[in-house]
This record gives sequence, C-alpha cells and structure tokens, in this order.
Amino acid sequence: MTQRPDVTRALAEWIIDCDLESIPVEVQREGVRTLVNWLGCAVGGARHETVDRALAAVTPFSGQATSTVLGRGERLDALHAALLNGITSHVLDYDDTHLKTIIHPAGPVASALLAVAETRPVSGRDFLTALIVGVEVECRIGNSVYPDHYDRGWHITGTAGVFGAAAAVGRLLGLDVQQMTWALGIAATQSSGFREMFGTMCKSFHPGRAAQNGALSAFLAQANFDSSEQAIEAPCGFANVMSDKQDYNEILGDLGETWEAGLNSYKPFACGIVIHPTIDGGIQLRDQLGEDVSKIERLDLVAHPLVLELTGKTEPRTGLEGKFSVFHSAAAALLRGDGSPTAFTDEAVNDAELVAMRRKVKVVTDKACHEAEVSITATLSDGRVIEKHIERCIGSREKPLTDEQIDTKFRGQAALVIGEAACESLMAEAWALADMASVGDLAAKSLPR
Amino acid sequence: MTQRPDVTRALAEWIIDCDLESIPVEVQREGVRTLVNWLGCAVGGARHETVDRALAAVTPFSGQATSTVLGRGERLDALHAALLNGITSHVLDYDDTHLKTIIHPAGPVASALLAVAETRPVSGRDFLTALIVGVEVECRIGNSVYPDHYDRGWHITGTAGVFGAAAAVGRLLGLDVQQMTWALGIAATQSSGFREMFGTMCKSFHPGRAAQNGALSAFLAQANFDSSEQAIEAPCGFANVMSDKQDYNEILGDLGETWEAGLNSYKPFACGIVIHPTIDGGIQLRDQLGEDVSKIERLDLVAHPLVLELTGKTEPRTGLEGKFSVFHSAAAALLRGDGSPTAFTDEAVNDAELVAMRRKVKVVTDKACHEAEVSITATLSDGRVIEKHIERCIGSREKPLTDEQIDTKFRGQAALVIGEAACESLMAEAWALADMASVGDLAAKSLPR
Repeated sequence: MTQRPDVTRALAEWIIDCDLESIPVEVQREGVRTLVNWLGCAVGGARHETVDRALAAVTPFSGQATSTVLGRGERLDALHAALLNGITSHVLDYDDTHLKTIIHPAGPVASALLAVAETRPVSGRDFLTALIVGVEVECRIGNSVYPDHYDRGWHITGTAGVFGAAAAVGRLLGLDVQQMTWALGIAATQSSGFREMFGTMCKSFHPGRAAQNGALSAFLAQANFDSSEQAIEAPCGFANVMSDKQDYNEILGDLGETWEAGLNSYKPFACGIVIHPTIDGGIQLRDQLGEDVSKIERLDLVAHPLVLELTGKTEPRTGLEGKFSVFHSAAAALLRGDGSPTAFTDEAVNDAELVAMRRKVKVVTDKACHEAEVSITATLSDGRVIEKHIERCIGSREKPLTDEQIDTKFRGQAALVIGEAACESLMAEAWALADMASVGDLAAKSLPR
Repeated sequence: MTQRPDVTRALAEWIIDCDLESIPVEVQREGVRTLVNWLGCAVGGARHETVDRALAAVTPFSGQATSTVLGRGERLDALHAALLNGITSHVLDYDDTHLKTIIHPAGPVASALLAVAETRPVSGRDFLTALIVGVEVECRIGNSVYPDHYDRGWHITGTAGVFGAAAAVGRLLGLDVQQMTWALGIAATQSSGFREMFGTMCKSFHPGRAAQNGALSAFLAQANFDSSEQAIEAPCGFANVMSDKQDYNEILGDLGETWEAGLNSYKPFACGIVIHPTIDGGIQLRDQLGEDVSKIERLDLVAHPLVLELTGKTEPRTGLEGKFSVFHSAAAALLRGDGSPTAFTDEAVNDAELVAMRRKVKVVTDKACHEAEVSITATLSDGRVIEKHIERCIGSREKPLTDEQIDTKFRGQAALVIGEAACESLMAEAWALADMASVGDLAAKSLPR
C-alpha cells in the first residue's frame, strides 16, 4: 500500500474498510478518552463570548434544528452545530494535542460526528470507529506535511482537521469508495486557516469550520457532487500547494498497523504549556502540606527560560492575564489545587489570599531545565524547607493523564456550566461510549438540569 | 495611502468610505454590465446537474428561506443562495474575466450581494456601489499576489473572491471600520480552492463558496466576532502564506483613482477561449454569406497552436466534447451563428448538417498567430474563395462586447431556462439597476413565467 501513487483513493479505501475489531484495544481506549476529554471541553467552553457572538451571527441561517450546542441547548442544523461545538471545544485552549503535529484532533472530528449522530441512530461502536478513523486521517495527513506546512503559517488543526471530519462523517453516511474519494477532495479544496489568527476568535473558528466543512463535504459527496480524485497528491492539490514537504508514506505507511490516534494527549491545565510543570508541582506540594500550605513564606522556582518570557506577568488584573502569569498560576495551584478554567477568572486573580501568595513566588530560569521540568523550593514559617522536583509534568508524553485526571479536568470545567449532577452523569455516559445504542443522546445530556 | 503598513485596515477604510459619486461613470457603467452578464450566466447555468446535486445536499441545512436560487425558484437562506448562485453563474465557464488575474469577478461578489439584498431593502445605487467595491477589492488583492499565487495552484476566483464578497456584503450591513477589518480577516482565514479541481464540480463550487464564506464573514463581523487586523499583510497572513509575491501597492496604490472594476470582460462564447476567434470569424462569415453559407465546400483555418492542442477533437459525440472541438465550433458558428450554450448540446454535435460541415474544416497552426487571431478561407461550390481575418476576437481587451452583444449572450442562455418573455423583462430590469428601489426584486423576476 505504501507504494500506491493514488494516495487519496487508497486512503478512502482504508477509511471505508477499517472496522473496530481491527483497531487495537489500547487505541480504542484512547478513542474513548479523546471523546470524554473533548466533551468536557465543549461543555466547558460553551459560555465563552466567542460562542455568543458566533451564535448571534449564524442562528438566522440555521436549517432544521436537529442538533445541540453542547452545554447550552440552542438547537441548530447539524452543520452549524458542528461549527459551534468545534468552537466551544477549543476556545479555552484546553483540549487535546497530537504532539507530533500540534493538531488538536477531536475538535474537527468529534464536533462533526456528534452533530450528525443527532440526526440518525449511530451506535457507540460505529461512532468510536468513525472517531478513531477521522483522527487517524487528520493526523496522518498532518504528518505528511509537518513541519513545513505549519511553518508556512497554516493552522494545522483547521487545514488537516477538515479531512478528518469528512472521513468520519463519510463513514456515518455510508459513502462508497468513489464518494469517499470525492469527500476528501471537497474537504481538501476548503482546507484553510492562518496561524495569524492566534489570539483572536478566529482561532477556535478554525476547528469549528473544519468540522462544518468536512461534514458538508461528506453530504455533498453523498449527493454525488464530484471533485478531483487526487486532491491530496496532485501537483495542484493539498500537499503541493500548501506545503513544501510531501511525505505520502506518512499517510499510507503501516496504515491500520501503527496508530496516530493512539498518541493523543490531553492538556491538564487551562493555560500555556510552559507553566504546566509549576502547576503540577504546586498541586503536589499542596497535597503534601495539607493546611500547612498557608505557612509558605517564600516559593522559589527554577524553570525553563520560556516561563518568564511567555508568562512573566507579576501583577495580572484579569483572568486572561492570569494565564500569562506563572506567579498567579503557582498561587492558584498551592491555595486551590486548581489549574482549570476556574483558576483563571477575574475573581481568582484578584482574590486577596492568591494575590498575597503570588507575591511570595520568585523565579530563576535555567537553560539546562527541560520545558516539562521545574524545581520548587518552599520555605515555611515554621522553618521547614521543602523541595519538589518535577522531572516531567503531567500531560507530557511520558506522563499521560490518567482516566481519573481526565475526570477531574472534566468536572473542573463542565460542572461550572451545567452543574455537578449533570456533569457526573454525562461523564459516566461518555466513558461508556462503546456500549451506547444511540450516541446522539449524549447531546441532550450535556445540558444544565 | 500607498505607504501605509496596515494594508487590511487601510483597505477597510476605503471600502466604507467609497461612494457612487466618486466612481467614474464609465466604471459605473462597467458595473452594470458586470451585473447583467452575471445574471444571464446565473440563470443560464441554473439547470446544470452540478446545481441539482449541490441543492440536494444542502437543502436540509438551509435556514430561513429568504433568498432565491436564480432561474429555478427554490428558496434558501441568504448564505446558501449565495453558494448556489455562485455555482450556477460559473458552471458553464461562460462568465466574466478580469484578464490580468483570470479572476471571474462577479460570481463571488454579485451572488453574495443579491442573496443578501433579498433580505432587506437595498437601493440600486447602494447595490451598484457595493458590487463595484467588491470587484475592486478582489481584483486588487488578486493583483497583489498574481501570478505566483495562481502558479502555486490556487484557484484565484475562490481565494481572492472571498474578500470581494465580504467587502460588498459588509457595506450592505453597514459595518464600521473595525468590523470591516475583521470581516476581511475572517474572509482571509477561509480563503481556499485548488486549481486541481478544474474539470470537476468543485470548480464552480469555488466562486459559490467564496460568495457564501465572504457573506458569512460580514455577518460574523457584524456580531463583533473578531479576527486579526493584519490578515492580508501579516507574516502568517494571506499574502505571505498563499503566495511568494506580495505587492501591497497593487492593493492600496491609486485606490479610488484607477479602477480594476472598469477592466472586466465578458466571454462571448461558452467554450475555451482559444476557439473564440474561430467562432467570431465564423459568425461574421455567415453574416456576409447569408444563405450561401450552405455552399461552403471547404473551410481552412490558420490558428494558434493551442487551438489543436486543446480543441482538436474531430468527432465529438457529446455537447461537452463539442466544447473541445474547433471543427464543431466552426460549424455551429457558420450554420447557426451560435457560440452560446445551445451550440454545445448533445443535439447540436450530432446534427447531420453540422456534422457534415465540421468535416469540411481543416486547421493549420502557426506559431506566429496570436491567441486572439485567426485566418479563415472559405471555398464555395460556385468557385468563390472568401477570406476572413480576425485580428483580435470579440471579448478581448481590444474588442469588448457591446451592450447589444451582452444582451444576445444573455438571451442565448437565459431564455432557454426561463422563456423569452421572462428573459426580456429580467434583462431590462437589470440594465436599469442604478434606478431600482429594491434590488432584491430582481431575484423573483429571474424565474420562468
């Protein structure tokens, strides 16, 4: 298969042929974790003003209201729901990451799948297979052009994500090989999204639009709307036009044998990844000290230079600024055990105890320090000096989040939006994905009770 | 203004500030011609199977049915109507051309404008201004990256068209400078479409999607959905990511003083441009010979080498194949005076008289021959030998279509779809664009009576 010149068609064949039995159980398990993590993020981001504004703009253009804006309850047609849920799941920068390509895989794929699954019966097994296949497709296409494509300025979650959404929804629609080849082509010719948009509402628009456009591609192909059959590999196709690197072996090599979908990772904290080790260490220290955490008189950090460069704000005034303050982040970890979105609210950064604690934090940088590493020394009023070294932070490839940590993350954001009871039952349902009779039911359970 | 580094914002300011009084009358006139030509094409292409399939796929997702699929009558929300009318207007490859960039300007801009104009009162003057501004924006942005951008593989009608649609609809919505800057940014980050799609249904999908996405950008910006404010010129923005050439003077230089929108041209015949001189000459010969055209025993052409390379089919069997046959095209010009879509039907290519005539056509190529040139020698059964030299074909920059020729083109395609009476009154209304009280009314008049 690796030698085939017809990359797009070979990929389409695999997308259709893949079945759950042929997917290793550990990859299936990662698929479920991907779904649970995505769902928590989609609910958790539902009240962001980015979502309010998008909804205000698109609601008049929504068709048959079959599908749900997760965590909120507005109902839109499946394509618009895919857009909105793709936005909500990414808007807090708290979702999942395929570390090889920096693709956030679930946003485009799961958002499209669940919105379409609300329009027809889709079993948990079929949904899980489509999700894994979609993630595999976008990450492999990402690998084929990364890093040149990303370095050129493309936001790869959007540009590669649209293929994953088309593949996943195409499976739900039962496309044949010809139609699936067209769906990938229609997706390709909509591939878009600039890194220039980082820091604006368009960043989360990208995975949302990838979900919506990928799903549309599948519906168009189902109606026999045709496209090029070499959209990925042709001289004027995706890989050549949008990247200077084209390695099709990354797409077709060992397809169905090695799994990118098994490599997904989940952000443990709702902020830039450089301060994750500090938060990780702070929470461990809090667990160790118990009430004595209030006795801390001074906290010294030795960290990677990027920590002060990117997150050196000493006196943040807003929640958003708090995400760029290692001082505030350390204080929230110590006093609240929190690195979730609640740690980065306006209330939190202005809380008197947190403000007092953050002023006790001193940072020294050391180039020898790994980005996932930090050394913390706490000096207490009773004279004790306690050291904590984080060799590799949670969420890194070496220390993936446990299922329990994914639960904690889920609760930390979703319960704020829909309440604890709804949050717990939604989480339980999501973990049981593979046994669900009709996955669309998840959407109704994502709402406040 | 040419020295401003904030290209996107400077362009946004101009988009908002431009008024009809400041547009030269000849450019205004070209704007009306652009609208009339586009409307004829949109109605003329309405029954193509590409349109049937797109409609089948998107209808379930259409929102409030405010806007019309021209020439057909299905009603969709404004964004979907923009998509469909963008497809119909381009699907016969018979629309307009900005010859410097090969952008087909009206598809993205007029399709978006009219669909939105059906949702609110828009005067002819406001519509015309928005149309001219939109065309100016897309052609100038095209100029700034052409030819590198096109050579890289981008279908520039889609990639540049989305800006034109955003600008035009943004004017109708009354966006302020901040919002218009965002609209251009949201448009930029959706810019897409590969030349690889030529020859498939996705080719006409590109102007349709540019219309829809550009309009969506304007609606999102109206809801204060933000984006980068340097989406065109930033290092990770449109021009740098999608082209190796960036000449911002092409965007801001002499803005409001020289007009790309005044340079629009209109295809006289519904086929590849290389056989336009032959059809032009054939029709002139027919006019000259009258009934004696039937006495032609042999027709010798001396033409540019591309004519045989691209359109050398001697025995076409379908209408589509007829578009790639200089022999059939010459016969249809001589015997029917026709280069419109009716000349390229299955009926026409299989008509016995046309088949007999096309077999009398001989072609010799000559590199010294210009692409817009042809020499024709007709030998008649009464012994006469008549020569016709076309120095520059109609539709070329040197010989633009007259208003009457635009009418003939309009009738030749639109009357087939909606009947002659409806066609005549629609055409009359369209020419009177600047005096219309509510341009949305044009849509209802585009339907069969």
